[in-house]
Amino acid sequence: MPFVGRESQTRRPVTAFGFELLASDGAARRGRVTTAHGPVETPAFMPVGTAATVKGMTAEMVAATGAEMVLANTYHLMLRPGAGRIERLGGLHDFMNWPGPILTDSGGFQVMSLAKLRKIGEEGVTFRSHIDGAKVTLTPERSVEIQKQLDATVTMVFDECTQWPVSEDEAAQSMRLSMRWAARSRAAFVERPGYGLFGIVQGSAYRDLREESAKTLTDIGFDGHAVGGLAVGEGQATMFEMLEATTPHLPAERPRYLMGVGKPADIVGAVARGIDLFDCVLPTRSGRTGQAFTRGGTLNMRNARHAEDGEPLDPDCGCPACRNHSRAYLHHLFKAEEMLGPILLTAHNLTCYQDLMREIRAAIEAGRFGGLAAAHAKIGR
Amino acid sequence: MPFVGRESQTRRPVTAFGFELLASDGAARRGRVTTAHGPVETPAFMPVGTAATVKGMTAEMVAATGAEMVLANTYHLMLRPGAGRIERLGGLHDFMNWPGPILTDSGGFQVMSLAKLRKIGEEGVTFRSHIDGAKVTLTPERSVEIQKQLDATVTMVFDECTQWPVSEDEAAQSMRLSMRWAARSRAAFVERPGYGLFGIVQGSAYRDLREESAKTLTDIGFDGHAVGGLAVGEGQATMFEMLEATTPHLPAERPRYLMGVGKPADIVGAVARGIDLFDCVLPTRSGRTGQAFTRGGTLNMRNARHAEDGEPLDPDCGCPACRNHSRAYLHHLFKAEEMLGPILLTAHNLTCYQDLMREIRAAIEAGRFGGLAAAHAKIGR
Repeated sequence: MPFVGRESQTRRPVTAFGFELLASDGAARRGRVTTAHGPVETPAFMPVGTAATVKGMTAEMVAATGAEMVLANTYHLMLRPGAGRIERLGGLHDFMNWPGPILTDSGGFQVMSLAKLRKIGEEGVTFRSHIDGAKVTLTPERSVEIQKQLDATVTMVFDECTQWPVSEDEAAQSMRLSMRWAARSRAAFVERPGYGLFGIVQGSAYRDLREESAKTLTDIGFDGHAVGGLAVGEGQATMFEMLEATTPHLPAERPRYLMGVGKPADIVGAVARGIDLFDCVLPTRSGRTGQAFTRGGTLNMRNARHAEDGEPLDPDCGCPACRNHSRAYLHHLFKAEEMLGPILLTAHNLTCYQDLMREIRAAIEAGRFGGLAAAHAKIGR
Repeated sequence: MPFVGRESQTRRPVTAFGFELLASDGAARRGRVTTAHGPVETPAFMPVGTAATVKGMTAEMVAATGAEMVLANTYHLMLRPGAGRIERLGGLHDFMNWPGPILTDSGGFQVMSLAKLRKIGEEGVTFRSHIDGAKVTLTPERSVEIQKQLDATVTMVFDECTQWPVSEDEAAQSMRLSMRWAARSRAAFVERPGYGLFGIVQGSAYRDLREESAKTLTDIGFDGHAVGGLAVGEGQATMFEMLEATTPHLPAERPRYLMGVGKPADIVGAVARGIDLFDCVLPTRSGRTGQAFTRGGTLNMRNARHAEDGEPLDPDCGCPACRNHSRAYLHHLFKAEEMLGPILLTAHNLTCYQDLMREIRAAIEAGRFGGLAAAHAKIGR
């Protein structure tokens, strides 16, 4: 695994931001997102690098898992170390040593889940930082500006992530506010070759609202479309139903991103419904608590049955945990609360997710995605 | 940095345990320890892998710093996961993916500093585990047996580490008990080609006791000699004085190891007094708390003056922190309490220590060690 190294971070010739559809199998799409920071083969999974670091991983370890694009959180970075500071230091790519594409969320979701004393109005959201209590205002214009300071390859529109459950009336009001914010985000976005702005479909678990939102965004015009406000407690069946109500109304020539999803079976089911991009804290967070993803399901490495097991976690996995160590060693590291446990298991889980995405891409290319989807539904991870 | 990988852990042809003196400059020695698990160029620094992991590092990251030999702690490993378990799993080298030489301490020092309700007698020490309160007895015979179960390349004799300060009478009694234990450790040690047993010189800050201890050990006969019971509060001047009272009485054709030392200036001064091997938690522990070693002194990465500093920690350092990131990024990671801060700074500090050892070796070879020692005394790290 070569270190990426500052010296090799020479920028590729600037490519227009776009999406190439390479193959399809039913609604499942095999594509390529092209960006100023290089291409991303889709369907793709983006590891979450909240505070400009995928927790416990060096950038070269993340790259070694097969990841081509990562996500960072606007909310966290605007509060610490600050978007202006990252801009002065040359942007997020240099800062975190990730020369590849980076997507930043808009901060909307985290404001709802982490910030204190928030007040939502037509203009935007005012809240107090969960770090130091400082009063902060986020508007569509400010969120887009911050994401430019961060030098995000993909900027997300500022939106309100609707609570769950919510009445249809409230969901409609919230979605329409998000659509007005989407239009303001679009107007505030400064076009740069190879950079993109994604709209976010809202509408909770209401098919008509999802359709209305998708059409509104299509009319405004974005470089890609996300489906937001899912995986918030509605269950997999409803999530899939909402995707079926949404993706047919999104332009086929733009990438589609399902935010914050999810388990392997969720990802496979969403790909079957036309989704190209994913992000989720599940592989990284689980890795830190001792939960391992394997082809056969999940394992808790703290469980005593691994204590004397000299076999690797997954003999077919190429990650450092599986190539170099036994299940017994991983068990020992978690029992002894050694940092290397979370480090190795995060590397493993991310590798497992990237291997899944590679399998999915190969299956779509070969026209056998249906078989893969059925097999994954059976494992039920 | 290639992964070491299980498949490449084929054992080298077994070499006799030994020490080759390649060059000397005053009392400073440039040598090579040969072992069943490969050679170690000396003077050498061994990173501490207490619980079969150098905290926060994969084995390949440790190897990338330039380290050839690591230390692991018998006390920790006998309690968790247990020496029998590590033996059943094929030994420490496989367990922690370190095919190179491993030195284990005898457990004596940790029993004194960590265990509860300890009782010392002629036979050995009985104590309660700091993990689960279980009653455990360690004797010279049991310690040597455990280190064989761990498959330690270098086994240390079981000793009593004298408290500081201590009267000459008590120091003499304690040292003589350690010498009787050393003879029992020697008798219990099972000779294996390429494996070694080291005696430990005790005697606190009393020159005569140190000399007596060194001569007693030489009479018993060991593959190498450690100087123990220093760096416990006596100060650098006393430590150096004790080394001067000790090393002339140790056989020149065997390696000499100063246990638990130390700062760069301590290491340079000890090399000047004929020491070949070192271990210390300082670079790893400091790395976890944000303290960086550099050629010019130490830096606290939490300090606000690094917040906007786009320069690397040390432009001449080849570690991942210095090659890929700015001081500002390291500062951010520590402020945000991200795991990657300790990971990167541990890698840096270990690299800094290994670079120092490389410099020392080159200076002895070139007959200019005196100049290097003077320069380091000036920095005063």
